[in-house]
Amino acid sequence: MPFVNIRITPDGATAEKKAELIRGVTELLRDVLGKNPATTVVIIDEVETDNWGIGGETVSARRGRGA
Amino acid sequence: MPFVNIRITPDGATAEKKAELIRGVTELLRDVLGKNPATTVVIIDEVETDNWGIGGETVSARRGRGA
Amino acid sequence: MPFVNIRITPDGATAEKKAELIRGVTELLRDVLGKNPATTVVIIDEVETDNWGIGGETVSARRGRGA
Amino acid sequence: MPFVNIRITPDGATAEKKAELIRGVTELLRDVLGKNPATTVVIIDEVETDNWGIGGETVSARRGRGA
Amino acid sequence: MPFVNIRITPDGATAEKKAELIRGVTELLRDVLGKNPATTVVIIDEVETDNWGIGGETVSARRGRGA
Amino acid sequence: MPFVNIRITPDGATAEKKAELIRGVTELLRDVLGKNPATTVVIIDEVETDNWGIGGETVSARRGRGA
Repeated sequence: MPFVNIRITPDGATAEKKAELIRGVTELLRDVLGKNPATTVVIIDEVETDNWGIGGETVSARRGRGA
Repeated sequence: MPFVNIRITPDGATAEKKAELIRGVTELLRDVLGKNPATTVVIIDEVETDNWGIGGETVSARRGRGA
Repeated sequence: MPFVNIRITPDGATAEKKAELIRGVTELLRDVLGKNPATTVVIIDEVETDNWGIGGETVSARRGRGA
Repeated sequence: MPFVNIRITPDGATAEKKAELIRGVTELLRDVLGKNPATTVVIIDEVETDNWGIGGETVSARRGRGA
Repeated sequence: MPFVNIRITPDGATAEKKAELIRGVTELLRDVLGKNPATTVVIIDEVETDNWGIGGETVSARRGRGA
Repeated sequence: MPFVNIRITPDGATAEKKAELIRGVTELLRDVLGKNPATTVVIIDEVETDNWGIGGETVSARRGRGA
């Protein structure tokens, strides 16, 4: 019955990659904690780099200066 | 003062339906727990079916095979 | 397949009240949007009044001064 | 290592304003709690006014009637 | 830079199991999407069975009747 | 009308510090984006170090080896 929310910046996250991520985390919860895959829910949120901050600055700014 | 976050896939959720959902959940919190509607906040997130997984696969995949 | 997260302060939320809330919001999503109750997940988080702020002050402080 | 999620309606939130918000909240956590800015993560979600409710109605409806 | 929030009921989730989960999901994000493990943040929330609902009833109630 | 969720490990976060954090972030949203403090909601979640991961390991483990 776990609920998982994954938040990433959108770069390169194709539908196939996202499906792989959903399958992988569902299997991980079954393998590590014995959680039932049938009721495991995973939601992926893609967040623009202007809206994501780390170290006090946006990911857009970090990338802009090559960080 | 409750805060409610509702996450759904977008299908058929018109502005009217979403307003009805917001009214309904606010009334429910007043009726069941006596919470003040004036300070009840509700946020609805619409999540694409490629980004929502259950049973280890995306909702897109489940629908594609008629599940 | 909806996911609902309800956040409240703990006062008076007995197990019975919380069960009533879960049933009510699940029925609301079925009635308003036709969502399947079997896959509707609801999580209630109870948050201490020291950890909840509105209007720039904690709920503890508001209650302390009778607001 | 704090994680902060800020949810706002989109009005007037330019990239510059959002960067300022990220910087400000990161500095606040350093100043108040001594948290390390380098590992402070901030995510801003912009939520449409049809999807945000307060007082049992959407922000769209409140604005429509001048509230 | 991903952020992952995993919500589970507490049963059997020892510190070791939780550490294994954190390591596993971090590696998954590196393997599937090339995300940097150093900045991948994972938060696990343990939610009591009275506060978790599925199918319109609490997990406590489901377990009580052997579901 | 903003909603802010701040997640921290509990160390040293007294009621006074948390109140200061709530006041500070509410003022920041008013100053940067003109948001109304009266309807700004802030929730602080304190997360045990066993349940928080970064770099693929728990904060407990990092601290245990002096990182």
